[in-house]
Amino acid sequence: MRFATLNDGSRDGRLAVVSIDHARALLVEGVATLQVLLDDWDHLIPVCRAAQQRVEAGQGEAFDPSAAMAPLPRAWQWLDGSAYPSHGELMDQVLGIVPEKTGRPLMYQGLSDHFLSGHENVAFPDLSHGIDFEGEFGVVLGNVAVGTPVEECARAIRLVVQINDWSLRALAGPEMKTGFGWIQAKPACSMAPVALTPDALGTAWTEGGVDLTLEVDWNGRSFGRAQGGAMAWSFAQLIAHAAATRKLPAGTIIGSGTVSNANFRDVGSSCIAERRGIEIVDTGTATTGFMTFGDRVRMEARARDGAPLFGAIDQRVVQA
Amino acid sequence: MRFATLNDGSRDGRLAVVSIDHARALLVEGVATLQVLLDDWDHLIPVCRAAQQRVEAGQGEAFDPSAAMAPLPRAWQWLDGSAYPSHGELMDQVLGIVPEKTGRPLMYQGLSDHFLSGHENVAFPDLSHGIDFEGEFGVVLGNVAVGTPVEECARAIRLVVQINDWSLRALAGPEMKTGFGWIQAKPACSMAPVALTPDALGTAWTEGGVDLTLEVDWNGRSFGRAQGGAMAWSFAQLIAHAAATRKLPAGTIIGSGTVSNANFRDVGSSCIAERRGIEIVDTGTATTGFMTFGDRVRMEARARDGAPLFGAIDQRVVQA
Repeated sequence: MRFATLNDGSRDGRLAVVSIDHARALLVEGVATLQVLLDDWDHLIPVCRAAQQRVEAGQGEAFDPSAAMAPLPRAWQWLDGSAYPSHGELMDQVLGIVPEKTGRPLMYQGLSDHFLSGHENVAFPDLSHGIDFEGEFGVVLGNVAVGTPVEECARAIRLVVQINDWSLRALAGPEMKTGFGWIQAKPACSMAPVALTPDALGTAWTEGGVDLTLEVDWNGRSFGRAQGGAMAWSFAQLIAHAAATRKLPAGTIIGSGTVSNANFRDVGSSCIAERRGIEIVDTGTATTGFMTFGDRVRMEARARDGAPLFGAIDQRVVQA
Repeated sequence: MRFATLNDGSRDGRLAVVSIDHARALLVEGVATLQVLLDDWDHLIPVCRAAQQRVEAGQGEAFDPSAAMAPLPRAWQWLDGSAYPSHGELMDQVLGIVPEKTGRPLMYQGLSDHFLSGHENVAFPDLSHGIDFEGEFGVVLGNVAVGTPVEECARAIRLVVQINDWSLRALAGPEMKTGFGWIQAKPACSMAPVALTPDALGTAWTEGGVDLTLEVDWNGRSFGRAQGGAMAWSFAQLIAHAAATRKLPAGTIIGSGTVSNANFRDVGSSCIAERRGIEIVDTGTATTGFMTFGDRVRMEARARDGAPLFGAIDQRVVQA
């Protein structure tokens, strides 16, 4: 199934199902928002399935992904992992910090009171903060009890989403050194317009994540073509890590961290900081700058046959 | 003004005003929840003021603080500072980690999808996690725009609350060393039953925080009597730090961090870890253990004349 949230002027928008080809959207009668669905999934999903059949049969209206809100415009919890090892290794180079290897997943809690849509301009106050994108995937959960074992955590995954975890790199290192994690370095994330049930990904839904190419273009030029299926920690393992001492409410989003592959010299990167890390490894100095006002970043993971899945994140950076 | 949230079986409860003596509570007609009030403060506060006058005049029903929910049972953002220098210095001893001094406030984002009430049992899975309390104060905000200067941040403070930031110390050090902050070490916090507008604190509301004694008793014995007015960063400064690169939505809660004083040998501590830090300084070894199942912690900051303000947090630790 494919869900979008249409902008009706309210904070949580209006839930719709989207046709496979992304051509049409149909409001789900009786299920106002995605959070309402997530809070009562088993009871309400049949209503959504029926709507999905109707939209595939031609009902509904034209779907404009560029006008959609984030599928979940705000969430009760956003916990972002860092599950691609090559990303972590390059970031150690960039930040000059090698976090202690604990043998456990890395994860931070980020702001979740608003997720930007995939197409709105993103305003930042200051270029000196080192504006960077981070292309990644995430899963949206049902309720997870404290201490849920890994094998049960996979069953809590309701939806898969594609995220740009905006990062301010100049602020990241100093905040990491406090041990308290990031506040200023992590403003609001953006979310691609369509959230999918895992079955909609077919064989691309794997233990190692979304096994598709995440196409990242910076100012219209190819920047990264990393494969998403290379997670060293599965989403189920990330969920179990998060739920070890806390319950996770329905609507919690767990992120994969920046999609990255060991052959980064061939496939490129899903964030600028990684490229700077490669430059530091190669020459001792980072030469690629961060984003500037007017810059555009586009990210999309399509099906292997080119069909749309999440839709694109395609945003311009502007001055706040 | 004094607000409580009565338990009507819903997740967000039902907003009530509470009389100065905490004897009576009156539901606020037309303002269902505290979040509704925070989202539209200027428009709705006159309704609440009128209700406050009626409850002082004897209307309403008997108020049972032990049956109240947290004033804000869930919030869109919980950002906890560490504004008492003596707490930080002792924690460095306990954790064996001295975070880099950045000259900026320390702050982490914790889970905010649920706050425990001040009187419910608190369930933890494992004693080996090092169960500890942290007595502190917090402020609940109206909307704050990105980059709001310090002098304007003070005006965003709507309410003052008293919090127990439950902490799992054995998990804290390893998570700090990742630089990503705390996930497992910081389960849900508890909140005392009454939230106050700053004016209700009178002269106890200062730049340095809530200038009252936070009485902390562990299993019925006095453990800490620290003064809350010793913050090195004001709440306004903490808000400005948080809002540097993100907007803060109405209902955001900013915490002071564990209340602590430089004369900790006289006044005691608001968390067990600090006492262990003192023991390490004095003898090289921490001898005081963390909490065990069945233990009780009580925290309350009363007015200088002994009148109730926030009510008490009084909870028992049980096995999950």
